[in-house]
Amino acid sequence: MKRLLSILTVLLLTGCVTRVDLRGTHDLGLVIERSSGSVSIVETTNQSRLGRIEGLGDLSHAHATYSRDGRYGYIFGRDGGLTKVDLLLRRIDRRIMQSGNAIGGSISQDGKLIVVQNYTPGGIKVFNAATLAPISEVPAEYAPGLLSKVVGLADLPGQKFAYALFDAGEIWVTDLTDPAHPVTQRFKAGRQPYDAMVTPDGRYYIAGLFGEDALAMLDLWHPEKGVRKILQGYGRGEEALPVYKMPHLRGWAMVGQHLFLPAIGRHEVLVVDSTDWRETARIPVRGQPVFVMGQPDGRRVWVNFAFPDNGLVQVIDTDSLAVVRTLAPGRGILHMEFTPRGESVWLSARDDNRILVYDTRTLEQMRTLDIPNPSGIFLTNRSSRIGF
Amino acid sequence: MKRLLSILTVLLLTGCVTRVDLRGTHDLGLVIERSSGSVSIVETTNQSRLGRIEGLGDLSHAHATYSRDGRYGYIFGRDGGLTKVDLLLRRIDRRIMQSGNAIGGSISQDGKLIVVQNYTPGGIKVFNAATLAPISEVPAEYAPGLLSKVVGLADLPGQKFAYALFDAGEIWVTDLTDPAHPVTQRFKAGRQPYDAMVTPDGRYYIAGLFGEDALAMLDLWHPEKGVRKILQGYGRGEEALPVYKMPHLRGWAMVGQHLFLPAIGRHEVLVVDSTDWRETARIPVRGQPVFVMGQPDGRRVWVNFAFPDNGLVQVIDTDSLAVVRTLAPGRGILHMEFTPRGESVWLSARDDNRILVYDTRTLEQMRTLDIPNPSGIFLTNRSSRIGF
Repeated sequence: MKRLLSILTVLLLTGCVTRVDLRGTHDLGLVIERSSGSVSIVETTNQSRLGRIEGLGDLSHAHATYSRDGRYGYIFGRDGGLTKVDLLLRRIDRRIMQSGNAIGGSISQDGKLIVVQNYTPGGIKVFNAATLAPISEVPAEYAPGLLSKVVGLADLPGQKFAYALFDAGEIWVTDLTDPAHPVTQRFKAGRQPYDAMVTPDGRYYIAGLFGEDALAMLDLWHPEKGVRKILQGYGRGEEALPVYKMPHLRGWAMVGQHLFLPAIGRHEVLVVDSTDWRETARIPVRGQPVFVMGQPDGRRVWVNFAFPDNGLVQVIDTDSLAVVRTLAPGRGILHMEFTPRGESVWLSARDDNRILVYDTRTLEQMRTLDIPNPSGIFLTNRSSRIGF
Repeated sequence: MKRLLSILTVLLLTGCVTRVDLRGTHDLGLVIERSSGSVSIVETTNQSRLGRIEGLGDLSHAHATYSRDGRYGYIFGRDGGLTKVDLLLRRIDRRIMQSGNAIGGSISQDGKLIVVQNYTPGGIKVFNAATLAPISEVPAEYAPGLLSKVVGLADLPGQKFAYALFDAGEIWVTDLTDPAHPVTQRFKAGRQPYDAMVTPDGRYYIAGLFGEDALAMLDLWHPEKGVRKILQGYGRGEEALPVYKMPHLRGWAMVGQHLFLPAIGRHEVLVVDSTDWRETARIPVRGQPVFVMGQPDGRRVWVNFAFPDNGLVQVIDTDSLAVVRTLAPGRGILHMEFTPRGESVWLSARDDNRILVYDTRTLEQMRTLDIPNPSGIFLTNRSSRIGF
């Protein structure tokens, strides 16, 4: 009887018969199957793949976020598709085409709104998180008739969202307290912001600039101070290497008061002190960093790289600032995700059709999972975090 | 059909018929019903009480932690009872009496071990998180035949646990990598550590000292440096007030690099800079602080008080360090818990038999829930955090 309850399954007639376990959602996640328009549902306790959901369109640069109850994932496809998937019933709950070309989205602090950032038409759109019904939009019209691509969208405390306008060189902050009537503040940021992130507390919004040798930082507790340039001239006038892949800034790592971030076009990880925003160190690495991600305990930072070094991962000790291990986990390492309390890290090896799970203490490989062309790995604890 | 699926219920013959919703676990929580030996299951999306589980023994100083999948809560009773409850089936899964007098517990980083801290007999005990089968124990024998009360247990990265020995004046760190064979390091801490906490990254373990006008800090990245006394003489030689209730240190608030913590026997909140561990400010408040808790966005710190001021809550702006609001939410405010992303805070008003939910932005009351003699409120996102 006990066993019967613990593996309780429910048979549902949903066109076909689906098997569903009654289970918690805190150890679940989604892996984007880049080329097939599918996502795999995985769980991190036994490190296994539970199932697949198909029919999500173009997932070549897909992002996912979660409902506040952890049951539903929202997948933002490159083609403007927005799909709400049910991780427990393992099927699509709802799906809409919301734009022609999209680049990710976020959920509001209270979990009631989904906001998508679009390239075409440039701007953000706001949807009801339960129904995906459209509520409002903010076209990124920075001058009459000119719409900018939007990048670097981040949810903030207080039903706000920050994002950057690539073509306008601006950062906008939109308050969705009244979701039908967005209120937007504009800030001059610098040339060509290409991605951005917010610190884990939602206070500092930082955009990388492609057109300037600097980053743009906005203190959201003091928006009246405007944007401040930080790390100006970090390239030191040297000629940058050709950029094979833009770094992903959402992966920046905050460790204590230090921020570890990828240099553009350079084989370096930069370390910045968030108390005065000065560079405190730069760490030589084996290639052009793409994701620079801190373990939840801040003890180490993991770095993956652009082509041709995308088979390597380097692990940096945040105390000594030394590279303590260079791993060669597989071909085409596109993404990394730590389990919520950081005992392991999941890596996607796109060209090996595999997910690799590493123990963060021993740095040994614990498990491989066969998943075709995996890219982004998104665990449900993102549901509890600001700025994801 | 859609509605049928969304409110899918399962009828189970478990002595009585139980109704169970298929649902995510990220918005669930438990409220200790102090006097009845029960816990209420609550959810924070619609802010409602879902049910009650009875028969958990003496819950007069109870603590709860969660399984890594978020489905099960572990309730540590004052009488040494350890109960594993199933939040989805809303019933006791397993229950054991593990000691005569206990004071809380924690779960290992990988979720496989439950560790309980005991007064009688003094020490920690290790259990299998799935079955509650005993695995090992570390008696707090600090001198031949002398066992200390254990306080301030915190889980750490790497399957470690830190705790303090009140009678021995020591901090111990036990490595449970091989759970059957614990390996323990001992550190001199100071007179009468009465509670402790670890910073959110699991790096700094800090114990409050009852017998000294200071706190004991251990940098777990550098245990070879031993314990350092911080805030020495923060009472400035003044006579302390009688202590009506010991502060709870697990509530200490880390905001950026600053730690906000309750002074013992003083109407003050102390602010410490974690980069050099010096006091940077002290904030006068209306009573003896018990819990000093930071919002997830760090923007404000909430403080409740010992008798006779236990009907008040003060809200401190962490930027200006000013008290921005004094609330009188009800009688006997024992505990506070923020929702995972901080849009609201739940307060227990023991003597009003109510839970009060406040909006953290407007500081207005949003909801009340009738729950008899509520004390601790524990939301499931603790499952994803270090040191809880």
